Amino acid sequence: MINPQMIATHTFEDAPRLDVIVVPGGAGYFQLIEANNTAMEDFLVRRAPEADYLVSVCIGSVAFARAGLLHGRRATTNKASWTWATHPSHGNVTWVPSARWVQDGNIWTSSGVATGMDMMWAFLRHVYGPILDRLVNSIEYTPHTDPDWDPFSVVFKVRGSR
Amino acid sequence: MINPQMIATHTFEDAPRLDVIVVPGGAGYFQLIEANNTAMEDFLVRRAPEADYLVSVCIGSVAFARAGLLHGRRATTNKASWTWATHPSHGNVTWVPSARWVQDGNIWTSSGVATGMDMMWAFLRHVYGPILDRLVNSIEYTPHTDPDWDPFSVVFKVRGSR
Repeated sequence: MINPQMIATHTFEDAPRLDVIVVPGGAGYFQLIEANNTAMEDFLVRRAPEADYLVSVCIGSVAFARAGLLHGRRATTNKASWTWATHPSHGNVTWVPSARWVQDGNIWTSSGVATGMDMMWAFLRHVYGPILDRLVNSIEYTPHTDPDWDPFSVVFKVRGSR
Repeated sequence: MINPQMIATHTFEDAPRLDVIVVPGGAGYFQLIEANNTAMEDFLVRRAPEADYLVSVCIGSVAFARAGLLHGRRATTNKASWTWATHPSHGNVTWVPSARWVQDGNIWTSSGVATGMDMMWAFLRHVYGPILDRLVNSIEYTPHTDPDWDPFSVVFKVRGSR
């Protein structure tokens, strides 16, 4: 397989203050967990309080949960990884089984991968207002605008889905 | 603005034979054109004949056209850049005004940016078959499956749109 390299601008140690922290989850985060590497959670515990918004895609919300940031909050996560992701050992979270994304205060969590695009549309519109629509038209994107529309919770037989 | 760097694996000079050549278009291609830099077209003239498929997003199809690869073929391109993109100086192409993407033989061209995701779904399904559906479900993506559904041709008042 041939992949281009992505070169980060900062490490967890030297990152500047962030207005928005976006945690994408994905295979890389699984690898951290399997290696008992808590660098992600440590960063979130340290730096999340100074961010205006916390935003996650896929199992990124598990990182928020394990960092204690979702205690007593509503959130969602990848439907294909639901049982593992929502395990009580990850914290006391009200996981929403049928949701493309969930907003609870300044924390926005989305379900699997592509749902992050629709949540990001909603999040950016929340921050910037209707001026965003022109940009979205220019990239010919048609977001799913209903956060509760979630056929994949049914596909993956998530308990409590509808 | 803080951007991560993308490091390419090859240059136009040392690229291996490619099964599929995907030209994304975008701001980078505009910059090449403004600089009278024909590196993209030169590469396509040289290497497109040995590829199994040519695939473009946005104004990537203009690069195909300027390389003479769309002569007498049907294709589409970004609706927000339509008048410039479809200029006769770019070649004798049957530009399709209302299309999210167009397939003509082994050449697949899509409209603006996000339409490339839907075309890529259709292209990969064409190559790999229904096995793709499981992957698409796992990333919770809901493609637009009708290539002729194109509200943006109307938004951008493209001549001939419907």
